[in-house]
Amino acid sequence: MKRPTRSSEFDLIRRFFAPLASGEPGAFALRDDAAVLTVEAGLRLVVTTDTMVSGVHFLANDPPALIATKLLRVNLSDLAAMGAAPFAFTLNTALPAEIDDTWLADFAAGLGEDQERFGISLVGGDTVAISGPLTLTLTAFGKVEEGRELRRASAQPGDDIYVSGTIGDAALGLLVLTGALNGLSESEAAQFTGRYHKPEPRVALGRGLAGLAHAACDISDGLIADLGHICEASGMAAVIDAAKIPLSPAARAALAIDGELLGTILGGGDDYELLFSAPAENAPEITIMAANSGIAVSAIGTIVSGTGVTVKDAKGNAIDIQNPGYRHF
Amino acid sequence: MKRPTRSSEFDLIRRFFAPLASGEPGAFALRDDAAVLTVEAGLRLVVTTDTMVSGVHFLANDPPALIATKLLRVNLSDLAAMGAAPFAFTLNTALPAEIDDTWLADFAAGLGEDQERFGISLVGGDTVAISGPLTLTLTAFGKVEEGRELRRASAQPGDDIYVSGTIGDAALGLLVLTGALNGLSESEAAQFTGRYHKPEPRVALGRGLAGLAHAACDISDGLIADLGHICEASGMAAVIDAAKIPLSPAARAALAIDGELLGTILGGGDDYELLFSAPAENAPEITIMAANSGIAVSAIGTIVSGTGVTVKDAKGNAIDIQNPGYRHF
Repeated sequence: MKRPTRSSEFDLIRRFFAPLASGEPGAFALRDDAAVLTVEAGLRLVVTTDTMVSGVHFLANDPPALIATKLLRVNLSDLAAMGAAPFAFTLNTALPAEIDDTWLADFAAGLGEDQERFGISLVGGDTVAISGPLTLTLTAFGKVEEGRELRRASAQPGDDIYVSGTIGDAALGLLVLTGALNGLSESEAAQFTGRYHKPEPRVALGRGLAGLAHAACDISDGLIADLGHICEASGMAAVIDAAKIPLSPAARAALAIDGELLGTILGGGDDYELLFSAPAENAPEITIMAANSGIAVSAIGTIVSGTGVTVKDAKGNAIDIQNPGYRHF
Repeated sequence: MKRPTRSSEFDLIRRFFAPLASGEPGAFALRDDAAVLTVEAGLRLVVTTDTMVSGVHFLANDPPALIATKLLRVNLSDLAAMGAAPFAFTLNTALPAEIDDTWLADFAAGLGEDQERFGISLVGGDTVAISGPLTLTLTAFGKVEEGRELRRASAQPGDDIYVSGTIGDAALGLLVLTGALNGLSESEAAQFTGRYHKPEPRVALGRGLAGLAHAACDISDGLIADLGHICEASGMAAVIDAAKIPLSPAARAALAIDGELLGTILGGGDDYELLFSAPAENAPEITIMAANSGIAVSAIGTIVSGTGVTVKDAKGNAIDIQNPGYRHF
């Protein structure tokens, strides 16, 4: 029933975390009982949270700044998927004895860089000791105009289905990191692992989609699984065209070596691209808006009545999603 | 780098946590990327968060409902200390293998009871696996009228210093639980351990104080330490009268047996009473409001210019706070 020494907890917050809260007066330099924040009239508050555990969601020897960045960005990706603009976050750290000041300084520096980039601020948190793995919880706050939030449950029959960026790179990166994918050039391997370690939350795109898209989510569980979530929540089905799924040149190269990697690309997670549906008449506006936001979007299929997700090959035949590699892509 | 099996995580959320989110439509049954909440015009959002680790903040064999209750209530106490009305919370659980469905059902039942009592709703969270101790993070959301939030930094010279309820019972409860306090009747011991296990967040009192008090915080680190925080944040000093500190009959009985327990009463934490300062002219209104909120408040001293906290005995002599038991109370 021992508490961590309070003075060292205070000191740690003062040194590493309070500087991250200096941009938001309502954070009271992390020295009050709670933060007091403003949600302006006409806006709604959007809240999402993720926990990451060392050995489960990252490796103990991953660079601290990279862990910080991933923890923050997976949450920003959720806000983007709701069409929200991020503005603040809280951070809870359960620190084992081996986490020292150097580690914390690097971790805070990673957060600080991303705070600046995304225009957000730390506003609160808690720091405790743990006799176990480093465990991190980040809760992110965004704002979206009333009635413009993007839901999973809003897909309509006839909607075009889109994804942003390219699909599968992060999942291929995990294969590289675990030694299960070889034969790539060094730059291809680095591209995949970079996507795995450092997601790019599509914040500007998500903001632009608010009001244009019907349904949206971010791709964290994998393209097929997350499209399944949209379909289930909306009471709809989806048919997508495998040939239209946007792949990076590196992913195309990997697929040319081993066609079974299509299973990884369709089913692997951690892309943190946006997956959304929109009525056909919004297609021109979506294309222009996406270009302005700096990220390409690709139409990959259609929402239809029914249940489930069907993936078709170039000849229009359904691909067995469980073993897509056995069908020729 | 293994994730917990996704299907069982979904199932667990559906069974135990989604029912707790049914009262807030913006929680989307915990099935969307984020919650979308309303903060009405004229109100500000108040956010606080706490992490509790098994073996540090509670014992592994503590009843799950009691762990849930304490986790929620320490956060509600922080909201009360800001003058805010709680309305929602998120919950992150890092679950070791030994946490089974029975444990989770009891934990959720404890949350459910308190949700109803405090009129709040679960709106989001995350559930992950951990090879280590059960680690729980709860982030609570409240609302307070613009400009009426209670800060730590707002104490003014001449303010009366008040505390709610009685002080020291929870710290004495911890002594009972660790076997360091004996010779009490069974009912006295149970009263102390009850206070330790199940804090009573002073939500109604905190709401009533918004606009009447200058500075406020909840007592989590101990009366002297938390008053020190108010003084430091406000650039003020405090003088309190030991004889005016409200004690339960059980605490008076314990103190009669062992005068050194005054150190535990003044320095121990976990009271979760409100500590606040207010101008003398608000005294009558505060007394009436506190009575209406169902919880007594006691004036125990005065805010003055200077630094630090001085505790005086009945003769007006300063008590050595480090060793208060050596002075006769």
